[in-house]
Amino acid sequence: MEGLDRVFSAVADPTRRAILAALAQKPATVTEIAKPFPVSLNAISKHILVLERAGLIRREIVGREHHCRLDPEPLHKASAWLDHYRRFWEIRLDALERHIITRNKREKRSHGRTD
Amino acid sequence: MEGLDRVFSAVADPTRRAILAALAQKPATVTEIAKPFPVSLNAISKHILVLERAGLIRREIVGREHHCRLDPEPLHKASAWLDHYRRFWEIRLDALERHIITRNKREKRSHGRTD
Repeated sequence: MEGLDRVFSAVADPTRRAILAALAQKPATVTEIAKPFPVSLNAISKHILVLERAGLIRREIVGREHHCRLDPEPLHKASAWLDHYRRFWEIRLDALERHIITRNKREKRSHGRTD
Repeated sequence: MEGLDRVFSAVADPTRRAILAALAQKPATVTEIAKPFPVSLNAISKHILVLERAGLIRREIVGREHHCRLDPEPLHKASAWLDHYRRFWEIRLDALERHIITRNKREKRSHGRTD
């Protein structure tokens, strides 16, 4: 699977996005990561493995503990891919802004007339 | 499935990313979209349906033709989610830049000594 495929697949799951959000706060062991989730440690381990394969998590094994930390680089690549489309949503936001300004002006004028 | 789940799932496939790239050039019918791909029209139709369900494609049916155009809004949302992690890769890029500057300075000094 290509890099971007793995990254986008990995972040397409809300539990995996929540794990990344937790690791963005601070590095943690697998047990610590699993704690707030109402699913089995095994389920969380599988999610962590998906994130690790996408390069989003680095794991260091110290004794019996697996220490995980966020690696943001694949997210950077995903963001760079999305940036190709930035002009499209910016054009839409510009159009929306123009529409709102025009509407406000029209409303002001029409209030002016009735007041 | 939640919005972001659908969007990230949709763009996790290289053919679907290529379809979006084509529609970013100009709107097209399903037949036109399928043309450059070495897969069946049926396979492309399925990909288009996934993109449509993620809100990335708007389809207008005119007679027997399905006209598709890009809707960038879900990509905007995906980009906004990734922006939460921007500081992490920027910190890493800063560190890399500092490392390169320090190394260059060191190399210049060491060249100065040997010349």
